[in-house]
Amino acid sequence: MIRSPVPRALLALLAAAAAPPPPAPAPPSPPSPGEIVGAAPAAAWRPVAPENLLVMALADGAEVAIELAPGFAPVHVANIRALARAGWFDGGTIERVQDNYVVQWAGADEKRPLPEGVAAHPPAEYERRLAGLALRPLASRDAYASIVGHSEGWPVASDGHAAWLAHCYGMVGVGRDMPPDTGSGAELYAVIGQAPRHLDRNIALVGRVVGGIEAMTALPRGTGDLGFYTDARQRTTIRRARIAADLPPAERPRYEIMRSDAPAFAAYLGARANRRDAFFVRPAGGVDLCNAPVPVRRQR
Amino acid sequence: MIRSPVPRALLALLAAAAAPPPPAPAPPSPPSPGEIVGAAPAAAWRPVAPENLLVMALADGAEVAIELAPGFAPVHVANIRALARAGWFDGGTIERVQDNYVVQWAGADEKRPLPEGVAAHPPAEYERRLAGLALRPLASRDAYASIVGHSEGWPVASDGHAAWLAHCYGMVGVGRDMPPDTGSGAELYAVIGQAPRHLDRNIALVGRVVGGIEAMTALPRGTGDLGFYTDARQRTTIRRARIAADLPPAERPRYEIMRSDAPAFAAYLGARANRRDAFFVRPAGGVDLCNAPVPVRRQR
Repeated sequence: MIRSPVPRALLALLAAAAAPPPPAPAPPSPPSPGEIVGAAPAAAWRPVAPENLLVMALADGAEVAIELAPGFAPVHVANIRALARAGWFDGGTIERVQDNYVVQWAGADEKRPLPEGVAAHPPAEYERRLAGLALRPLASRDAYASIVGHSEGWPVASDGHAAWLAHCYGMVGVGRDMPPDTGSGAELYAVIGQAPRHLDRNIALVGRVVGGIEAMTALPRGTGDLGFYTDARQRTTIRRARIAADLPPAERPRYEIMRSDAPAFAAYLGARANRRDAFFVRPAGGVDLCNAPVPVRRQR
Repeated sequence: MIRSPVPRALLALLAAAAAPPPPAPAPPSPPSPGEIVGAAPAAAWRPVAPENLLVMALADGAEVAIELAPGFAPVHVANIRALARAGWFDGGTIERVQDNYVVQWAGADEKRPLPEGVAAHPPAEYERRLAGLALRPLASRDAYASIVGHSEGWPVASDGHAAWLAHCYGMVGVGRDMPPDTGSGAELYAVIGQAPRHLDRNIALVGRVVGGIEAMTALPRGTGDLGFYTDARQRTTIRRARIAADLPPAERPRYEIMRSDAPAFAAYLGARANRRDAFFVRPAGGVDLCNAPVPVRRQR
């Protein structure tokens, strides 16, 4: 619905043509969140460590990059690294796309024994201690937790003692069966709709899609229960999934995440909570944790 | 990540095979939100009035149905009815798909004069009086408004005096240029990601997609600014858009919306806020307004 700031350009032209004394030029519009991100200095960004970047090449040529979060789910992340190193996901498929919920994928044959070094029954890493976490709290209210905010680029919720990753758009978790410890990492999902925050602390979140999410969100929705594809030909194949550290340096995609303690991030959050750029007539006065996506940029 | 309740079935089998005295059967799992919706009686539903249902047939055969909200944006809804009746959208296209944000569509030629009866500059119908609205408040906190809840199936926010529709997933609004009153209804958008609630009261919401949203959410994302398609061939054509009341009765799709004052809706919200069905280990204790999508069903 935002088209272009033509009317303002027109106003400037009219102002320039007016008879003297010339009207004072309109004050510049406060920057939009995107303008704040674009102007952020190098110090506002941290690189994604190659050891924490899962790179999936899909059969259609698209690439999906996921930053892993060992600070929140260390055993699951170790599993996912071991699975990727063993080629577990190569030839696997996207099995399920449920609208306004999740995309889920797995290796080619779930009945294979798990590769060596992969814990079949990792602990339920649904939360960690808040202590030791540099949390930048968000002032806005939240329906799910007494404290929400960001830590090193992650959306986090807390009750003052424990802290956990929040199921925001693009977050990646580990599929599991009914018992809480059955998810090894051999099946993963990404959130593609309104944040399903009721899953927080019910399932292990292990990371976030930082690049290429459109390759998953624009897939046809499955027509079976839970969005499973009923026709195997609808499944998108995962050609290869690797940890970036294992790729030749020239082939590693390089991403940067805006630091949660950067002044530019505070400015970004402020602008998300109160848009004052030209289109907006009424600033919101707050921002939901998941409606302030942490800025990401790719280095080319 | 929810696969199937096999482990519970297995437990039941084991229980049946155990030596006497037989263990008491496990108490049944509390119903899921979906089970509550499935069991809701006829009185829990209201039909969508044919005069309030915009039916769009896409060129690929898909049908998108949108319930209009004259109680919130009467002039804009009257415009949309008049536009549909004049065939405005027929041959138009989906112009823009921005990931985690909106899908936007328009008539074939925006430079045509608007059909008779269409207000070119409707008032900024961004809010209405709370008085006169049957609002079922939600107990959970909200980042954007002091009061949120549901009214006749609509997600609503309020400050105690004014009330307005909330930008939840699937809500439909009217594209506009910079001046707040320029959106006639000739360009519409639907929300396809995390609720962009900062748009509340900045743009007129006029309805909600009640059927066929997958036909829009699974479209390729545009690669231009704001998700505009840079190649016109990527645009999906709208074959025809009509008000259901103008279709022969046999061709009218019939939808029903769960009533906001129905006991089943209260039970549904309770289950969304505190999932106690078998998969969940920790109920959330709250639910975001936009994470409790109002149940819809289609009559066949």
